[in-house]
Amino acid sequence: MYRSHNCGELRISNTGEQVTLSGWIQKVRNKGGMIWIDLRDRYGITQLVLEEGVSSNESIEIAKKLGREYVVSVSGEVIERFSKTTKIPTGDVEIKVNLLSILNKSETPPFTIEDETDGGEELRMKYRYLDIRRNPVRENLELRNKVSFETRKYLESQKFLEVETPYLIKSTPEGARDFVVPSRMNPGEFYALPQSPQTFKQLLMVAGMDRYYQIVKCFRDEDLRADRQPEFTQIDCEMSFVTQEDILETFEGLTKHLFKSVLNVDLSKFPRLTYADAMKLYGSDKPDTRFGMKFVELNSVAKNKGFKVFDDVELVVGINAEGCATYSRKQLDKITNFVKRPQVGANGVVYVKYNEDGTFKSSVDKFFNQEQLKEWANEANAKPGDLLLVLAGETNKVRSQLNELRLHMGEELGLRDPNVFKPLWIIDFPLLEWDEETSRFHAMHHPFTSPKEEDFEKMDSTPGEVRANAYDLCMNGVELGGGSIRIFDKSLQKRMFDLLGFTEEEAKEQFGFLMNAFEYGAPPHGGLAFGFDRLCAMLGGQDSIRDFIAFPKNNSGRDVMINSPSKINIEQLKELNISLNN
Amino acid sequence: MYRSHNCGELRISNTGEQVTLSGWIQKVRNKGGMIWIDLRDRYGITQLVLEEGVSSNESIEIAKKLGREYVVSVSGEVIERFSKTTKIPTGDVEIKVNLLSILNKSETPPFTIEDETDGGEELRMKYRYLDIRRNPVRENLELRNKVSFETRKYLESQKFLEVETPYLIKSTPEGARDFVVPSRMNPGEFYALPQSPQTFKQLLMVAGMDRYYQIVKCFRDEDLRADRQPEFTQIDCEMSFVTQEDILETFEGLTKHLFKSVLNVDLSKFPRLTYADAMKLYGSDKPDTRFGMKFVELNSVAKNKGFKVFDDVELVVGINAEGCATYSRKQLDKITNFVKRPQVGANGVVYVKYNEDGTFKSSVDKFFNQEQLKEWANEANAKPGDLLLVLAGETNKVRSQLNELRLHMGEELGLRDPNVFKPLWIIDFPLLEWDEETSRFHAMHHPFTSPKEEDFEKMDSTPGEVRANAYDLCMNGVELGGGSIRIFDKSLQKRMFDLLGFTEEEAKEQFGFLMNAFEYGAPPHGGLAFGFDRLCAMLGGQDSIRDFIAFPKNNSGRDVMINSPSKINIEQLKELNISLNN
Repeated sequence: MYRSHNCGELRISNTGEQVTLSGWIQKVRNKGGMIWIDLRDRYGITQLVLEEGVSSNESIEIAKKLGREYVVSVSGEVIERFSKTTKIPTGDVEIKVNLLSILNKSETPPFTIEDETDGGEELRMKYRYLDIRRNPVRENLELRNKVSFETRKYLESQKFLEVETPYLIKSTPEGARDFVVPSRMNPGEFYALPQSPQTFKQLLMVAGMDRYYQIVKCFRDEDLRADRQPEFTQIDCEMSFVTQEDILETFEGLTKHLFKSVLNVDLSKFPRLTYADAMKLYGSDKPDTRFGMKFVELNSVAKNKGFKVFDDVELVVGINAEGCATYSRKQLDKITNFVKRPQVGANGVVYVKYNEDGTFKSSVDKFFNQEQLKEWANEANAKPGDLLLVLAGETNKVRSQLNELRLHMGEELGLRDPNVFKPLWIIDFPLLEWDEETSRFHAMHHPFTSPKEEDFEKMDSTPGEVRANAYDLCMNGVELGGGSIRIFDKSLQKRMFDLLGFTEEEAKEQFGFLMNAFEYGAPPHGGLAFGFDRLCAMLGGQDSIRDFIAFPKNNSGRDVMINSPSKINIEQLKELNISLNN
Repeated sequence: MYRSHNCGELRISNTGEQVTLSGWIQKVRNKGGMIWIDLRDRYGITQLVLEEGVSSNESIEIAKKLGREYVVSVSGEVIERFSKTTKIPTGDVEIKVNLLSILNKSETPPFTIEDETDGGEELRMKYRYLDIRRNPVRENLELRNKVSFETRKYLESQKFLEVETPYLIKSTPEGARDFVVPSRMNPGEFYALPQSPQTFKQLLMVAGMDRYYQIVKCFRDEDLRADRQPEFTQIDCEMSFVTQEDILETFEGLTKHLFKSVLNVDLSKFPRLTYADAMKLYGSDKPDTRFGMKFVELNSVAKNKGFKVFDDVELVVGINAEGCATYSRKQLDKITNFVKRPQVGANGVVYVKYNEDGTFKSSVDKFFNQEQLKEWANEANAKPGDLLLVLAGETNKVRSQLNELRLHMGEELGLRDPNVFKPLWIIDFPLLEWDEETSRFHAMHHPFTSPKEEDFEKMDSTPGEVRANAYDLCMNGVELGGGSIRIFDKSLQKRMFDLLGFTEEEAKEQFGFLMNAFEYGAPPHGGLAFGFDRLCAMLGGQDSIRDFIAFPKNNSGRDVMINSPSKINIEQLKELNISLNN
């Protein structure tokens, strides 16, 4: 037997018990005569004490040679600690060691196993098995486990069935790039790894499964931006005989359950915002609503007043940074530099200080008088002491730039508290988006998303204006999930494929099985998927998903710990009927 | 709103309520004047009734045109049924329909959606979304969901953490064939899909996670025998600071919990049998212990009595088929034919009838007298009325043949009741098995399995005799799971790689990360994996795993529903830096 208790559970009530513990050496303090050891496992830390003349000589000798991260087993008596600590739950007791044995030695780790480590990202990833021993990473993985289990509990209680869908599926050129898997038994043919179980979950609805869920790995072979992973996890759900309202209710319920059960946070009813309003008010379909600073459109008061920069553009739009009228030249320059960064891409920013004395000072004083600036301030509901920051340009571009500036100002002003959670639904997404490059429409969500019934008539005339029964769940400026009511009518699905420029053959080749299924009594259905890694990071109060994944890949899609991907041998290639180019 | 209730929940207490239901048309009976409809969803069947002059004309007209599997929505009043039925839980009531509308039409399905369908396997798989509508398949998937959730509940209660391990890992030539995934971002390099998360779960133990589990897809590119799938699901577990005893206890507990919670079956303490005894007594490492008929070795009483066939072989061994002394010539011929089948491969079978009058009649009467045959009967504890069936040959071969015969006789005699569950642990597996083809040892379990300490000394002298800390959980002749205590000492692991004929470079190239991890304080650890598909089939009382998988592949690894694998286009190949041969 390696242990009678773990390192986190002994309390003052255990005093006098003979116990056996096993774990890792966190720290050894040798004060001559007495040796104190912090022994660590997943559950906590327990202090051991060895005393010359009391503990066996053998144990003392072993203790003297212990290094950090050695694995040991000890037996002894639980005694009350002389100097208690409340820092750890076991802080009232220590173990008077009789027997100490080394189970395994350890080289000196390449970085310290402490909450704040001296190891850089690359080193931590290479030795991820040591990194996970650190509290912050371990706690993230524990949180992930909890989120996953609570998700299942909630969905089970709502009659959802977990159904495993296949991982070896079929490649479709639509959407992002697939990872493919050559089939040895079917030479020249390939499986693809799923980008999501989308078509399968719809087939499960046709199959009458009614409510489906799965916490499932998905795969996208994309050029990796920061904080994207080639494999990621989704909470994937689908429901039959539902309207959009049923789905929003159900997953608002799930989200509330998770925040309550994991963080003990009560979320109140989630506001809803149309995509159009979100773009108009925040320049983003995932606005951070922890703070206001909504967009104020200034065309009516700022255009056609003789300032050519404004007159020539589609949209003049600003935000009101409350209490910032006292910003110095230097602070304003910093804002200008921020918006000029290539990632933001504005040419500059116009500021208007609403001074405490009621006067205005702006970077466009030459073109606008005090009265005119007052009109701006009125539009923005600004008060003396506030600062207006104004951008101008082509509507979509300038909104996106001002979104960046708004988030930046929110950050600067400390308005983005990671312990405050502001969920909202974004609804009524456009069905299609125009792709300049290929000169055709793409599905904004995916080709199975249903258009809103009241917009059916626009499908032929102005397809770009058709809204979809599609929705996203956003929180704190992050998209946690999204979904849609699906098309369940074969002819409407055909029309959709037409709009997307699929030939009949292409549609049949790629989605024939779904179209076929729709011939046999498909129920109305819809669903949603949460980005599980992202959801965990949100609940963990962190921005990066990487530390909520046990073994993440780096930005080149590499696992630096196992050194993968790697070359395979020539026999394997031959069996698979493929060769490397060059 | 598509429904106020589902089709399985209305009871007599709902009488008088106005309800809305949606579902599929199971059956329509038009008796002129009155139309009865069975409406079906996942939850059950509810009877609808329309009456001319009572229901709207429009509804009546729609009802007359309904076909099987049409999707409809109805509203009406719950009324007490005139002729009640106890066959379905809703059998006390029916819905007097006011409103009936068709949500979607259906073509006539290619097979009947009934418990006993007229559709063959191939057709059912092609239209799997219709097949799943059938009760038996739906119930299997519901059972699978239940098994999965109860597994999680149990393991969570035992402090196991679910940790997701990566799917894009590294190919290793050891073991079965990997599925590989070409990396676009790392040209010429490949990921592999995991055959199991073995190395990752061991790394998680090094990482201090203490107790890990995952219900996870695994992949093997093997030539598919019947009832093997290229992707399959495991309950994968690992524990630190444990002995074999701890692991057997824990997973015996899990198994008991599943049988209790899913089937309300109480399993008593699982017997244990060494591999050596299992082979000696049953000729199999997964014996069906629902019945006795243990092997009886007859060398001492049957060899060197002048019967050359026996004298020339290693082992003469038989079973006692109780009460079968009355078998006819024809029945005995059938047994002979059975053992001569190429799948069994014996040359013939010797029988000895222990007649009710105390005499013996055998196929070797020429060589053995009554007294000698009596000795056989004594060895076998046979009584008058019993039948001995005896095979002879090379030990391993004849045991394997007699195992087949024993199972066959058990089947014939009705001793293999699918509602009786007989679990047992097989322990002390050999560490290595000799591979004639490559003239070297292979790991019987895998290269990380630890040898038994008391057999360490044999590792150099007689490695084939070394026993491992490895165990399988068997039930009713099926292996449900297996595992081992792992090597956690770097030098022992090295020795194991040596035994397996790995060069130092190969070991480093393939498992260097694990060997590295072992430098930094690896705890003693071990684990187990259940074959989840197989476990579900066992709980479902069925032999085939295929109908416990929502979307299985056929014996050529094909998904005939989506027609995968399939060709991919030339641009995809180019991007991946690979070409097809020929």
